[in-house]
Amino acid sequence: MVAQFRHNALPYPASGAWMPGDPVGHRQFHTFATERPFSLEGGASLSNVTVAYETWGTLNSDASNAILVCHAWTGDSHVTGPASEGHPTPGWWEGVVGRGHAVDTDKYFVVCANVLGGCQGSTGPASMHPDDGKPYGLRFPVVTIRDMVRAQASLADALGIRSWRAVIGGSMGGMQALEWAIMFPNRVRALAAIATSAAASAQQIAWSSIGRRALLMDPGYNEGDYYNAAPDAGPWYGLAIARMVAQVTFRTDTRFTEKFGRQLSDSSLDAHGIDLFSRFSVEGYLDHHGDKLVRRFDANSYLYIGKAMDLHDIGRSRGGVDQALARITAPTLTLSIDSDILYPPYQQEFIHQHLREKDSRTRHATIESGEGHDGFLVETAPVSLQLSQFLADTE
Amino acid sequence: MVAQFRHNALPYPASGAWMPGDPVGHRQFHTFATERPFSLEGGASLSNVTVAYETWGTLNSDASNAILVCHAWTGDSHVTGPASEGHPTPGWWEGVVGRGHAVDTDKYFVVCANVLGGCQGSTGPASMHPDDGKPYGLRFPVVTIRDMVRAQASLADALGIRSWRAVIGGSMGGMQALEWAIMFPNRVRALAAIATSAAASAQQIAWSSIGRRALLMDPGYNEGDYYNAAPDAGPWYGLAIARMVAQVTFRTDTRFTEKFGRQLSDSSLDAHGIDLFSRFSVEGYLDHHGDKLVRRFDANSYLYIGKAMDLHDIGRSRGGVDQALARITAPTLTLSIDSDILYPPYQQEFIHQHLREKDSRTRHATIESGEGHDGFLVETAPVSLQLSQFLADTE
Repeated sequence: MVAQFRHNALPYPASGAWMPGDPVGHRQFHTFATERPFSLEGGASLSNVTVAYETWGTLNSDASNAILVCHAWTGDSHVTGPASEGHPTPGWWEGVVGRGHAVDTDKYFVVCANVLGGCQGSTGPASMHPDDGKPYGLRFPVVTIRDMVRAQASLADALGIRSWRAVIGGSMGGMQALEWAIMFPNRVRALAAIATSAAASAQQIAWSSIGRRALLMDPGYNEGDYYNAAPDAGPWYGLAIARMVAQVTFRTDTRFTEKFGRQLSDSSLDAHGIDLFSRFSVEGYLDHHGDKLVRRFDANSYLYIGKAMDLHDIGRSRGGVDQALARITAPTLTLSIDSDILYPPYQQEFIHQHLREKDSRTRHATIESGEGHDGFLVETAPVSLQLSQFLADTE
Repeated sequence: MVAQFRHNALPYPASGAWMPGDPVGHRQFHTFATERPFSLEGGASLSNVTVAYETWGTLNSDASNAILVCHAWTGDSHVTGPASEGHPTPGWWEGVVGRGHAVDTDKYFVVCANVLGGCQGSTGPASMHPDDGKPYGLRFPVVTIRDMVRAQASLADALGIRSWRAVIGGSMGGMQALEWAIMFPNRVRALAAIATSAAASAQQIAWSSIGRRALLMDPGYNEGDYYNAAPDAGPWYGLAIARMVAQVTFRTDTRFTEKFGRQLSDSSLDAHGIDLFSRFSVEGYLDHHGDKLVRRFDANSYLYIGKAMDLHDIGRSRGGVDQALARITAPTLTLSIDSDILYPPYQQEFIHQHLREKDSRTRHATIESGEGHDGFLVETAPVSLQLSQFLADTE
């Protein structure tokens, strides 16, 4: 019974979990802070910072057609393109970015960079500490959304991009896009902030915090020093549970009912599931998503990036959120998903209310969808429609 | 840093955690299944089952004034009354039940029993297994809401209560109330089901399952055998995390923003919280609720009762939910909290839609409140108003 229980609780083998040095695909790498350290908002600094990025399309002669797409929590630079080595799945915004799509790579030079603190090629907690060549782990300094943006600014400099035709992002990508428009108003000619907020709310922090606690409780976490652990001894359970918490907030009650209802998993022991260890289909779904993340993502990156989102507050050291929004000069598209329980529409409407008088091209739209927060990834048609109209308006 | 981190992650001492044998207050105890075992829905059976209960008021001569109140997940029989030994806080429905209140103990004989599987005096996983006198732990059989109700029916028999003037419950209490009206239509003369559902939804199961996994992952859980663990070695972290998941679903985004916003906890290390181990006030709130539960509740009971709720489906073995609702003959009050994200109003409206044609006294009301699911406990005034009107209508 106990074996079954363990099996049912978290059925995946830990082997196959993500490890530093796993292939990261055909990316390019920009390294900076080689002479002077890169100072972080929290006061620490990093040297020899690498930003992994991908580009699509061709930068025109005056470098005026570059669009930056910013990814979310566990995303990476692979916005579009087929699955390949290091990319077990096609791009995360397939259908929105690409040839002939809303963010048309025949027209625009599209850039996406893995965030600072990530684990898909950019410097993060799994990177080697220059002092001892061992992974940073918890020695990695806390990074903020602003630090991520400043790392991207260094990449923009290296690419010769003085200003972005547009900066676009959903969820944490939207936080970066907002910070870009506030930190570098002269470098952002249009801003699209989707399913995001001006500052993390208490509820968002609560969910994120609970996930972190689950990860930290896993004995395999070993205070962040698990990179040399045996394949079955890392913090995979904890990371999976953290992901499960997030996964429920990414979706909706309605979709869960439609997809799973009260269906039992095949492996359940009792026809009616009347067993402490029986499993409903929705639990198999949670396992699947926990498993998927464990195989592709570093637990410390999950922790650090989650904290960066909790710390997201465009108003910090700027006299508050209103003052920060006052700095934005770019025409701004804000997009909401009506069923988003994690970043509810009022958060994007709040941003819009502060910006709508500034520029006639600034607009807000709400996408009707049962997909919840993940709607920004899934509802490619209405997202594309809004983005292409906005890009046309801001031509 | 690491010590601070542990401290910040889960700051409470594990000592003071709940243990079997902790005082359970001035309750009465009904023991049954002393000669023939009590068969459970899942096929197992229990002998010498104890139901701990409290009563208020006086049973009249024809035993027609008895009202059963059913408690929720981590509730107990202490519906009303001051804090005392075994009851660190006053009753959980103070202001709704009592002298001169909606459920008037001057008029009604009010009964509340700790559920089967609980840890506040009724037989549960922390009870002694008759074979070896050691706590059942995971040897305890899975129990369902129907099993809880049949244990309460045995208590009703012992008290000489042929039929209840009303059965009232919120959340899991509402599940029991619904099952009472379906299993024993002749014994329920009025039914009040508050912030509850006819069957657990996939999303409810998902939340519950994630909490269970966190508990199971805690090394202190030790496959349910932690009753002899050192005070700091039980599954307190895991139980606390499970509770935190639930706590967020019990409340609302709006209230969290009002109460906590982005305020930092006093113990945060950085003025702006830019530290991996900084804490927002909402995280202190989660700690507080985790801590409180750990001190008063058995982890295995939490697990078993959570599973009972996941298994809640009035339609099981009855040809579906519609057929089950067709069995209800009692006039029924369904109550919703408009901001309830865990048991959203549509779930109570669904029940009402199936019952409203049956009896002119059947009614539905939605309470406007920012409190979320916990509104059924917190909003005593509108809950009382609805209950008193309903009790008057069904006089």
